[in-house]
Amino acid sequence: MKIAIMLFDGVTALDAIGPYEVFAATMKCEVKFVAKKKGLIKLDSSMGYLHADYDFSEVDSADILVVPGCSPPNYKTPMNDQVTLNWIRQIHKTTKWTTSVCNGSLILSAADILNGTIATCHWGSFDLLRSLGTIPTDERVVRQGKIVTAAGVSSGIDMALHIVAWEFGEDISKGVQLILEYDPQPPFDAGSPKKAPALLVEQIRGMLQEFDKR
Amino acid sequence: MKIAIMLFDGVTALDAIGPYEVFAATMKCEVKFVAKKKGLIKLDSSMGYLHADYDFSEVDSADILVVPGCSPPNYKTPMNDQVTLNWIRQIHKTTKWTTSVCNGSLILSAADILNGTIATCHWGSFDLLRSLGTIPTDERVVRQGKIVTAAGVSSGIDMALHIVAWEFGEDISKGVQLILEYDPQPPFDAGSPKKAPALLVEQIRGMLQEFDKR
Repeated sequence: MKIAIMLFDGVTALDAIGPYEVFAATMKCEVKFVAKKKGLIKLDSSMGYLHADYDFSEVDSADILVVPGCSPPNYKTPMNDQVTLNWIRQIHKTTKWTTSVCNGSLILSAADILNGTIATCHWGSFDLLRSLGTIPTDERVVRQGKIVTAAGVSSGIDMALHIVAWEFGEDISKGVQLILEYDPQPPFDAGSPKKAPALLVEQIRGMLQEFDKR
Repeated sequence: MKIAIMLFDGVTALDAIGPYEVFAATMKCEVKFVAKKKGLIKLDSSMGYLHADYDFSEVDSADILVVPGCSPPNYKTPMNDQVTLNWIRQIHKTTKWTTSVCNGSLILSAADILNGTIATCHWGSFDLLRSLGTIPTDERVVRQGKIVTAAGVSSGIDMALHIVAWEFGEDISKGVQLILEYDPQPPFDAGSPKKAPALLVEQIRGMLQEFDKR
């Protein structure tokens, strides 16, 4: 299968690399990192880069499109760039699965791909997603027809394992999980707003809202 | 804190990007991707690149060193390269924490940093780790003094969350977990050899052993 992972300046590395690693481990997927302009892509932390090996003109179809997210407000540039949105629309016409990780669903929404549907994104971006006409839900992986949206950052790993199971069968997905030794044992159980201390949730929500105003 | 993540051709992207994303999300760490030669670093899948912004000569100390792993047999080049091993030894002298992800512990072992200690690595590399004089254990994150080794690929996320808790306190670690929405929900429970179907474990073990012979 042909996978296109869209990159843009200010992307969150793990949003892209989580699904990449799952699809790569199947040894049945050709993954391409694609951006408006190929070359180095600055990470949202400003402490490193990913690399787009292809520009939009070189990739006009994909079986799976992955649109990763970013720290606020880095989504604003792709959300307001017609070249990017048109490329997403073009690829979406050709896909079996169109997917997003984290607030990548804001970008899918800006491309008119999520209008009126139920989708997820990073918990800190629910209001923004709703303002774009998409109905947010706090499930970790949301499948609506061929569109699959995932929650914040790390959830792209879970999403990609689901898609691998749907496409290649449960055994291949379990095999990938085993290769990646994805047997999560975080030291705490604070990975969602429902589970984290309420004060911490509000602190981080406030911080992300401040970032969005930049 | 200053974090140095060592890269080398054939690295597994998630081994490096998992810890990177955790440390970056603290907003208290300066992360540098470092390699023998700076520039693009080919991934083990041959389907993309990470980027080393610094070469060894530019980084002579770190509070935390992260040595990621790779698909077999890509560890052989760094394990047999004295410039790489000497750089690791030099940085190790300066660290508060020296860490590895996946079979990065083979490289630490080759640098004489794990001799006779208990450590972990990808479950498929236990025999190789033992042959280097290190005692393998199947815990996901193993702390021995200032040396912390993590199991396969995705375990670097858990490891880094532990280190963040030890260094900055539990609240910061929980906050990072929440920012990364690390509330894992894999579709299956097959992420370790104890949990995956026995036949699958043996198939993948065989495949990895074949890769090692390349």
